[in-house]
Formats: sequence, structure tokens, C-alpha cells
Amino acid sequence: MALAEDTTLDTGRRARGGRSNRRDASTKPLGVPYIRRNIPTYDILSEENLLKIERTADRILSEVGIEFRDDPEAIELWKKAGAKVDGLLVKFEPGMLNEILKSAPASFTQHARNPARSVEIGGSNVVFSPAYGSPFVMDLDKGRRYGTIEDFRNFIKLAQSSPWLHHSGGTICEPVDVAVNKRHLHMVYSHIKYSDRAFMGSITAEERADDSIDMARILFGTDFVDRNCVILGNVNVNSPLVWDGTMTKSLRAYARANQAAVIVPFILGGAMGPVTNAGAIAQSFAETMAGCALTQLERKGAPVIFGNFLSSMSLRSGSPTFGTPEPAIGSMVIGQLARRLKLPLRCAGNFSNSKLPDGQAMQEGLMSMLSAVHCGANFILHSAGFLDGLLAMSYEKFVMDADLCGALHSYLAGVVVDDNTLAMDAFLQVGPGSHFLGCDHTMRNYTSAFWDSTLSDNEPFEKWSEEGGSTDIATRANRQWKKTLAEYEAPPLDVATDDALKDFIERKTRDIPDAWY
Amino acid sequence: MALAEDTTLDTGRRARGGRSNRRDASTKPLGVPYIRRNIPTYDILSEENLLKIERTADRILSEVGIEFRDDPEAIELWKKAGAKVDGLLVKFEPGMLNEILKSAPASFTQHARNPARSVEIGGSNVVFSPAYGSPFVMDLDKGRRYGTIEDFRNFIKLAQSSPWLHHSGGTICEPVDVAVNKRHLHMVYSHIKYSDRAFMGSITAEERADDSIDMARILFGTDFVDRNCVILGNVNVNSPLVWDGTMTKSLRAYARANQAAVIVPFILGGAMGPVTNAGAIAQSFAETMAGCALTQLERKGAPVIFGNFLSSMSLRSGSPTFGTPEPAIGSMVIGQLARRLKLPLRCAGNFSNSKLPDGQAMQEGLMSMLSAVHCGANFILHSAGFLDGLLAMSYEKFVMDADLCGALHSYLAGVVVDDNTLAMDAFLQVGPGSHFLGCDHTMRNYTSAFWDSTLSDNEPFEKWSEEGGSTDIATRANRQWKKTLAEYEAPPLDVATDDALKDFIERKTRDIPDAWY
Repeated sequence: MALAEDTTLDTGRRARGGRSNRRDASTKPLGVPYIRRNIPTYDILSEENLLKIERTADRILSEVGIEFRDDPEAIELWKKAGAKVDGLLVKFEPGMLNEILKSAPASFTQHARNPARSVEIGGSNVVFSPAYGSPFVMDLDKGRRYGTIEDFRNFIKLAQSSPWLHHSGGTICEPVDVAVNKRHLHMVYSHIKYSDRAFMGSITAEERADDSIDMARILFGTDFVDRNCVILGNVNVNSPLVWDGTMTKSLRAYARANQAAVIVPFILGGAMGPVTNAGAIAQSFAETMAGCALTQLERKGAPVIFGNFLSSMSLRSGSPTFGTPEPAIGSMVIGQLARRLKLPLRCAGNFSNSKLPDGQAMQEGLMSMLSAVHCGANFILHSAGFLDGLLAMSYEKFVMDADLCGALHSYLAGVVVDDNTLAMDAFLQVGPGSHFLGCDHTMRNYTSAFWDSTLSDNEPFEKWSEEGGSTDIATRANRQWKKTLAEYEAPPLDVATDDALKDFIERKTRDIPDAWY
Repeated sequence: MALAEDTTLDTGRRARGGRSNRRDASTKPLGVPYIRRNIPTYDILSEENLLKIERTADRILSEVGIEFRDDPEAIELWKKAGAKVDGLLVKFEPGMLNEILKSAPASFTQHARNPARSVEIGGSNVVFSPAYGSPFVMDLDKGRRYGTIEDFRNFIKLAQSSPWLHHSGGTICEPVDVAVNKRHLHMVYSHIKYSDRAFMGSITAEERADDSIDMARILFGTDFVDRNCVILGNVNVNSPLVWDGTMTKSLRAYARANQAAVIVPFILGGAMGPVTNAGAIAQSFAETMAGCALTQLERKGAPVIFGNFLSSMSLRSGSPTFGTPEPAIGSMVIGQLARRLKLPLRCAGNFSNSKLPDGQAMQEGLMSMLSAVHCGANFILHSAGFLDGLLAMSYEKFVMDADLCGALHSYLAGVVVDDNTLAMDAFLQVGPGSHFLGCDHTMRNYTSAFWDSTLSDNEPFEKWSEEGGSTDIATRANRQWKKTLAEYEAPPLDVATDDALKDFIERKTRDIPDAWY
């Protein structure tokens, strides 16, 4: 397969488009299956303040409690585990959830159908995954419209073609031209068919979660799936402090199959949680702990990812806002707390309220994305594509964000300090008042020295305006995604497996009328 | 004066446009004179690796040395201080410069003519200052052209009108319609006339530095200036390892007057320094230490700012690149090193190679700006306005960057943890499955909760497209800078002072022919 040779893991030093482009202009840029970070996390809160937040989470869990709706089995699991259950309301003594969570792995491998693309989720590893869940798509030519299965496949192809994304994602956009009750089958199939990377399954109903996992079993084999993580399911808390049965049943379906649920509260400060960051963080922490713990009650030792999604609100309009400073800084604290639980972390990716791939989009997007990188997130969903809050996948923004993910490979590589990088030989050779352009040290190191974006303009003004057509980055991105789609080649898929998947879909959909809600 | 009531220093919590706009729509947003950060610096390198870089800097200083050209007095100062001098080449024994630097203050006040606008430079304080030095200006209406004194004044007015900038800057653009030998007089006068904030003087010749300081003496009084810092001078190393006489004479002029020089190497990796980050950092550290130490030899105890400017290079074109990951991450290390010297720090601000205020501009700008914020920079020159590398000041980018500086006020406020922000009362009041929109805690806190940009679009798509005209942020910025300039009111300046300044300029320029280079 195309990138089968690029499996050596490192901190991103060799993952440079510039060098690989030059080395052989006909090959694609090198990528790494995931990043091992070489910079520490950015820990902004003191031990004393972390304890205050943990204690508040304990009080929320023990004094206020969490409702588990429409899932009697979940309630039974909580009773057996010793929680205080009163109808749908479950309360947890301080320390109880921490104890349950000890069985969850701190790190695990999610296998891809191409083993060279398998990702390690946890520890100092970082996995970039495309955005998830928007009903709309947009591009500069056709503007905004509802997403279709063709758009869905296109975004998978763009993700697969980027050396800077590591994962195929899940509901990369909603393919609204496919019936709701059959959509999950075509989404999972598309991920398997058009990508050889790891992917996510459905969570919108327990049977759809089961179908997703069954398709993974066809691809990987039943025994393998029982012993290894091959599919993720992203489940949301119904904040504040409610777990809906649809979500807990899907969560339990993934855990039961030894697959990883990603547990994510979505807290819009002032609406689904307190308007102050510390309280929203405490709530998020409590809600996620409860969801993660439930996976362990369903199947001890099942992999699970500790997620969070903080958001702010425009005080003028009441609209949710994204890429703002408060959620960015709050995510850093969530990271500190998750590490104390020794669970893999998912944090906020790249968000903006902008409706265009403009300056606002990239500023808000990077504010949010860097926060995810700094807070130590292991799995960064929504790494590429979002515009209009969570509502639209933009073709241009997708390739701009993927290019940014490339830059973050270099960022996460940090500053390497050794005799070569300290360059004492260069100082002795060059001396004062000269230049380093041709010195031995430069010749030895220049090809791997700097991130070289394929989208950014670095030309002199005259060249940009006369030869380059005075383009902005969105215009260049528009050209790039079209070129990438035109050149896309599907990774080979075993014919028998392909047929078995198609047969599974046929059996699951035969004689079933389409449902559209 | 307009903001005289806004002098209480805090961490930015009250510095929110949203709240103040609502409180009284007719008043300007509140600003703080500078930020006291409430988040730690982001220290990415281990003690062991910091020591390796310091030792390399020691070796550069003692084995390679630094040339001091065209300034025999500087050479004499080094001889007296015990450095090894061989012609123009000066070598420093390890520890020598550290010892000299002990007399430099860790923090100092730069006074503004409006005392409420004075800034504290050092410690955990952060001062945002506009970009500096570009020959071109640009806007969406007229494109790129050479800057004029009208542009110069316009940018001062825009800076003065922003609550999120703290300083008036220096050569905010080159006013090329004013003769080179008289330009500094009109630049310094414009800062004094159109802003009541702290500012920077000329460094392009010793007599221009002296003139700048003399004008500050007219404004503040000679005795006051001798005892207090009222003007900064930004001097550049001629990297690698050369200090030019023009710079050291200006540097010494500022120090002699007890004013602060900002000492800045400009290292384009692979050209003026090694292509690897660790070596470039060591060089930058060595060059800055030498410059800072020279201020102390000129006048022990004079304030001085430890600066740095790392840049990368496009491997395809050889062009310098800005806002890239390597300099961003390298600046964090510079910050760690500067703190070990206990000197105030200046770091890279907001840069991009883009020729338009587009997605590239804001992504690269924020990557660089956040690095300055994270690395602990006390004085962030180039906080607003740059496009096209260092070559152009953009009217739109200026107001977009100033808005970003507003967001960074909230970012630097961090997460406040106390009984109010932990919001336990809200959880007890609201409980599971409800919402926080009208609860007591929200009503008590919402006005100060979230950063509210005046440029970002947070409307629903339909409202944005139908009522908002589907604008991008650059278009909104274009409207904003025009409105701001139209509404600008000059801060009152004492008439006698104004006349004395005009008289000074008249005396300095009378019968002097214009020189244009």
C-alpha cells in the first residue's frame, strides 16, 4: 500500500513535506501513523486548584447526581457497583468512580486495516482525526448545502490523501441523501472502502452501534475484534448531568465488544453548564468520569477515551462561540485532570463560527487546535474541516486545517538538543559577519530543518502578485482539494472482504423501508 | 483623559468589551494599561538541555567572539570590563556577561504622558505594542504602497483607540515622504501628539537617538527622564555575531540617558545563524547577552530588555518564513533562558508572509503571537499590523490583530478557581436535565464571563448571509478601521509642551537640507 514503508514512529522530524517533496517529486509527502510528542503538556493550574475542582466534581456526583434515562440495565449496573440509585438519579460517593476507572487502560492501540496505519491512543501520542457530525458542506464554488454520501466519500478521500491526518474519523459529514436507518452502514462501508486508516462507527442507536462493530468483525475477524480495539464510538453526555439511554446503550455496546467509547460532554457555558470556567470544568469532569466508569462496569478493561468539549457564548446574541480563549484555556485544565485519572484524552479540535475559510476561521481554529495540542490530548477529533460552529464541513478549510496539522507535527517535535543541533562546528567554521548558507552544518541539516507548507504563500510580493495571481489561501486551498480528489487512488481492499461487507449491508437493508428521522 | 478612570490593574477579568459595551453603549470598551498574567509560562525544555544551550552560548562568546564595528568607545568599555579584545573582535570568559548583567533591573516602569497608561515591563506583566519598521502600508481599497506620515499618524490613532494595545510603538511604518534625516523628529512628535501612551524613539543614528530622548525630556522634564524610563530604543544585532557601531552607539545613548534599549538579534535560520533551532537559540542568547551587558557598562543599572527574533526559511524559495512552528517553539526556550538571567523579555509578535488579511495571515500570526504569550514575553513588539513578512502594515490586519490582543487578555487571565467560579450553588439550584440560562450564578457572572470579539461573526448562517451581507472578517475590519479613524479624538496635550516640541523640531531642521538615504 502507498504508505506501507512509512511506519517508523518518531516525533515528526522526518515528517516534512518539503524534504520528501524534494527527495522525489513524484512521491507523496511522508507521514507518520501518529505523533509522539516531544514537548511537555502545558499545565496551567496549581495542585491546590486542581484539588478544588476535583472536590467540586465529587460534590456534584455525590450531592446532585446524574440521571440515567431509558436504560434500566445501566441503572442495574450502577446498583450492583454500589451507587445510590433513586429512580433514574444515580449518586456516587467520592472515590467510587476513581476506583472503577482503575481497570481502564491508560493507552491502547486502535488497529487500522493497513497495520502501518494503526494508531496508539494514550501516553504522549497524538492522533489527528477529521471533524465529525456536520449536516452541511460548503466550498467556494457552490456555497453551503446539505452533505451527501458523495461529499462523505470525498472528505474520506481528502483525509486519506493527507499525510498529516492519522485517522479517517466517523460521521465526517451527514450524508442526508441516505436514509437515517441505513446511513450508518454506508458510512462505515465508505470508511473501510476509501481509507486504510482507523475509523469510528455509529452511536445513534444500539443496533447501529452493533452493526458498525459487526462490519469491523467482517474486516478484522471476530476473534481479533474481541481482543483488540478496531473501532471507536463517540458518545455525548446530555449535559447538564443527564446520560440519555441512546448514548449509554451505544456506549455499552462498544465496551461489550471491547471497543473504545469516546465520552464527551458538550458544555456551552451559561446554558448546559455554569457560565464560569472552573464550574464547567468540574461538571465536565464529573460527567465524563461517570460515562467512562460505565464502560468498565459493562466490561472491565475495555478501552475508553476521556473526552471534553467546552464552549462559550456570545453575550450579545446568545449564540455559541468557538475558538474563543476561555474554552482554550479550560481545556488545558481538563488535560491535567484526565492525566490524574490515567486515561487517554480527547480534547477540542479546530472550531470557528466563521462561515468562510477566512482570517476568523483560522484564528479561532488555531486557538482551539493549539489548546488541544497543549493540553495533552491523545485523540483530537475535529482536527480538520469545521466552519459555522459545528454545522458545516468546508472543502477549503479541510485542506487548510490538514496543512496546519502538518505544521503541528514540527511543533510537537519541540527543540532537539544534541551536538548536531547545537551547531558549534558551524560557529567555528563561519565566525562573525559571514553567513551560514553553504556551511557544512547547513548542508547536513537543511532538508529536515523547517516545516514547509504547501498552501502558504512565502513568495516576494511581486512574484505573488504577478506570477501567483494575488491569491489568498482559500483560493489556493480550492485548487488543492480538487487536485487531490482528481489524483486520489483507493487503497486496495480484499475482494472477498468487500463482497462480505456489501452482502452484510444488503441483508441489513433488504425489505426495510427507508426512515428519514 | 478618556481612560483615566481605568487604571486599576488586574488580570484582565474586567477588561471585556462585551460587558463594558453593554454597561453603557456610549462609552469605549475598558482597557487595562498592561496585563498581569495569571497563567504560567510554557517551559518546554529540561534543565539539562537548557544548560547545554547556555554552555554553547558560553563557547560562542569565549571561542568565537563578537565583532564590535565602528564604535571605539564600546571596545574601550569591553577592555575595561576585562574582555579579551583583538582589534574589533571581543571574547568573553564564561560567566563574565552574567556577572555584568546583575546590575540590570528585572522589571521597570516605562512612563507614559498619561500616568494611567504607564506600563510595567518585567515579571509577570505583558505589554502589547504595534508592529514596527515596515516600508509599505496596505488596505483592501488601495492595495500596497509606501507608507507616509499620514499613514504613520493613522496607525498611531488606531493603536491609541484600541483598548487591547498598551503601547504606541515606534516606527509603526516608515513615513517615506519625510526626509530620512528629519523623519525621527516627526515620528516621535506624532507619538506624543496623537497618543498618550508610552512610545519608542529612533535608533538609526546616535544623534537621532539623542534627539528622541531630548524630545522626551521636553515632555517629561530633564530630571524625571534621568531618573525614570520614558522612551525605548529597539536595536538590532547584525547577526551572526556582529554589533554594528550605529546600533551600539544608539544603544549606549539610551543607556546613558537611563532609558531602555531593546536588544534584538534577527536570526534567519540557515542564513544569519545555524539551520537548527538549538544552535540558533544559543547564538541569539549570546548576541543578546553581549548587547544587554554593554548597556550596563555604559550606565550601571540602566533598564534593558532582552529580545529575540527567530525566523525560518522556505526550503523551496529561500525566502524567510514567519509564523512557522520552529521559531514559535524556539521562542519558548528563549523565554526560559531570559528568566534565568532575570531580565525583561521581548519576543516575536504577530507575523505572516501572507500579502492579504486572510486565513494564512491569521493562522501564522496567532502561531507566532501565542508563542510570545506562552514564552513569558513582557514586551511584545509587532503585536498588530504586519503582513508580507516584516514589509507591510495592513490597516485591516491591524484591527484584526488588536481584536486578537483583546482575546489574549482573557486567555492570560487563565482559570480563576474560587467558590464563585466553582459554581456549586448553581449545580444545587439547577440539577440534572435543566439549564443554567437564568440561574442566580449565571445572572451574577455572565457579563464578565466570555471574551466577545467586535470583529468575529457569531451569527446563525442565515442572519450572516441575509442581514450581514456574507462578509468575511477582512471586510468587517475594513469598515472598523475607517469608523475608528473617523471617531478618533486626540488626547489633550499641554499647549506649552506642544509648542516646545514644535520649536525643537524647527531648530533641528532649520537650514538643514533634506537627506533621503
